[in-house]
Amino acid sequence: MDDGMGVSHLICDTCDRRFEPAEVSLTCPDCGPDRGTLTVHYPYEEIARTFTPDLLRARRDNSHWRYREILPVAGRPAVLHPRVGWTPLYAMPVLADSFGVERLWIKDDGLNPSASFKDRASSVGVARALAQGCKTITAASTGNAASSLSLFAACAGMRAVIFVPESAPAAKLAQLLIFGAEVLMVRGSYDQAFDLCLATAQERGWYCRNTAVNPYLGEGKKTAALEICEQLDFSVPDAVVVAVGDGCIIGGLAKGFADLVRLGFVDRVPRLYGVQAQGASPLVAAFDKGEQVAGHWPRATTCADSICVGRPRDHIKALRAVRETGGAMVAVEDEAIRAAMRRLARQAGVFAEPAGATGFAGLDHLKSRQLLTKNDKVVVLVTGNGLKDVTTARQAVSAQPHLVDANLAAVGRLLDSRERS
Amino acid sequence: MDDGMGVSHLICDTCDRRFEPAEVSLTCPDCGPDRGTLTVHYPYEEIARTFTPDLLRARRDNSHWRYREILPVAGRPAVLHPRVGWTPLYAMPVLADSFGVERLWIKDDGLNPSASFKDRASSVGVARALAQGCKTITAASTGNAASSLSLFAACAGMRAVIFVPESAPAAKLAQLLIFGAEVLMVRGSYDQAFDLCLATAQERGWYCRNTAVNPYLGEGKKTAALEICEQLDFSVPDAVVVAVGDGCIIGGLAKGFADLVRLGFVDRVPRLYGVQAQGASPLVAAFDKGEQVAGHWPRATTCADSICVGRPRDHIKALRAVRETGGAMVAVEDEAIRAAMRRLARQAGVFAEPAGATGFAGLDHLKSRQLLTKNDKVVVLVTGNGLKDVTTARQAVSAQPHLVDANLAAVGRLLDSRERS
Repeated sequence: MDDGMGVSHLICDTCDRRFEPAEVSLTCPDCGPDRGTLTVHYPYEEIARTFTPDLLRARRDNSHWRYREILPVAGRPAVLHPRVGWTPLYAMPVLADSFGVERLWIKDDGLNPSASFKDRASSVGVARALAQGCKTITAASTGNAASSLSLFAACAGMRAVIFVPESAPAAKLAQLLIFGAEVLMVRGSYDQAFDLCLATAQERGWYCRNTAVNPYLGEGKKTAALEICEQLDFSVPDAVVVAVGDGCIIGGLAKGFADLVRLGFVDRVPRLYGVQAQGASPLVAAFDKGEQVAGHWPRATTCADSICVGRPRDHIKALRAVRETGGAMVAVEDEAIRAAMRRLARQAGVFAEPAGATGFAGLDHLKSRQLLTKNDKVVVLVTGNGLKDVTTARQAVSAQPHLVDANLAAVGRLLDSRERS
Repeated sequence: MDDGMGVSHLICDTCDRRFEPAEVSLTCPDCGPDRGTLTVHYPYEEIARTFTPDLLRARRDNSHWRYREILPVAGRPAVLHPRVGWTPLYAMPVLADSFGVERLWIKDDGLNPSASFKDRASSVGVARALAQGCKTITAASTGNAASSLSLFAACAGMRAVIFVPESAPAAKLAQLLIFGAEVLMVRGSYDQAFDLCLATAQERGWYCRNTAVNPYLGEGKKTAALEICEQLDFSVPDAVVVAVGDGCIIGGLAKGFADLVRLGFVDRVPRLYGVQAQGASPLVAAFDKGEQVAGHWPRATTCADSICVGRPRDHIKALRAVRETGGAMVAVEDEAIRAAMRRLARQAGVFAEPAGATGFAGLDHLKSRQLLTKNDKVVVLVTGNGLKDVTTARQAVSAQPHLVDANLAAVGRLLDSRERS
């Protein structure tokens, strides 16, 4: 019935071919890594007999392992910590009014252990690698996926080998190195690092945590959708808005909501809206043209480094996610992203990295195009913590510290002049 | 019976004078701000009639407001988010073995909304300021207390004015400015900024969130002790170990455990161990001499900026906390702090800022002096997230990325040579 990890079968996103779990490890051999990404299935009917909303209501596990019955892992994984998922969903009535929607919630995934959404996927990847007896896990990334993987590999006592392009910023390397990952800095581009990582993993039998090509990672990402539903007491919002780079997160959300329908927990799914940065929006271009695959942008550019992607690896799932739910892909300028960082911090108390604030940055745009209306209940996902990139945060604010002499009279004069102005 | 915020009275830490809540706002007028810090009391007997472990077990509030009956706030404060406290307590059996203690847990307070322990205090400070109708809240700090205050003030729609010394690092200012705080950069030292902040708050009727002088902040800090106890199913460990700078956190922990005894939830308290950096250890010096107050070190220095304190503002409570619980104050070298950062990351999956790792850094020292023994159940507190200071994290690791040409043969040769070595 399943593979010992709960999975019944996988289906190719392009040709619909069905695979037994043991038949395939990454992508569909007929369609290849670019178009042959796979979707994971479980014996839903059987699971739904015992896995119910009431069972979840009674469960006190404050992590995404509370959904282990529909995760591709055996039991509660040995990777018991750190506590991943079950991030807060904040109701924001004042912001809802100002955007002109009925309800607005912000889900803050910057509160995950490595401070980004990617922990949901890394934790599942490492749990599977452990169960399969792999001793080494690898990924190509300069950012959140790599630091997240390094953390979970360290917890599991596994070797992590991270491929980064030569341009990787020193600050991001700090997190990899402190977790003890081996870092291979490739004299070349991110795309070259990605391909080398894939080839090396195959050659050496390492477990591959690369975005999109590993179908099980999206299963970790879907847990954000499960949490949104449970935190709203098993109802679904009308719309969910999230930043999009490779497209894995929005694809994972779509899978999560689809699983909830299959289990009979809810009877509809929300419209999913993906927000890209204008300078790196191949998925928006594809969506606008009604295409099912994205083109490559060789010179993607945006201040939001985590979604600065010119060749979105999970394009098929991402485009399907917005198309099939009645949502859309939209783009925002970098200045809107910086404004969203300020507004999120000051009105919601959430310090987001630029990509983390990009979903929120799309709200005005979605409202002005009437894609969101006054009756909509909307959830916005924040995908990463602002401490990941304080440089851009500093650029996002024009205010400066006020220099003042160290005496009370000088302080008083300064404050009086500010209060008068 | 109380002040409408649940408090029955306050007692001076030095002269034991008792005050009604309305009589005093910050410190004892007889003993002054340095020695006249106050301790908050509640009508414990009355509270214990309805506030019980069973009530807490049933409560699903994943924040420190779950303890509102013994916090100096009215009901559940309007500051509903962000989710502060209820941080994870990780059991670490392998580390317990390697340190030679019976059990070891790590409590990760870097997962608070502004990524440090200080959120526990700021949230209570802002809730009180709101209830008192204050529109402006102020603090002197360059670090975690200021960024935390800025976040909670933003959530509450309050004005925050932060006094920083001229030497404040640009990266730390980013967090203050993005939350919209007004930053006054004083041409002078931290001590001058502190005194100016205090005087300005008094002059203008602003709410003062300065460490130690505001007795209610420690009530927020005590919630870490309450959580440790509840997360261990209402038992207490034998020892709790934490980094110490000003001494407020360890003072708050002592108060939390004392409150649990007063409520009859537990019948003993753990030994509290404070760990300072060698270059900034006035409390260790005072403890070793059996003194009840600390001297001032004009040239405190350590890589752990959050505990680089030469004049600990909460010295009375801190020294009493370790003395009365049978604990101790010990010092560690900066190199031990950096080693602790590596070990915490690689063996526990917790990326801590230098001060955040300092408690953990003290374990070897405590064990070698037989202050911890093989029968001890020990909790170590991590007080801040490593993303707060990636520069020191980078200095803590000697490993470097391996530069490699962008072809599979070169990658293979590099990996083979590493695996052979």
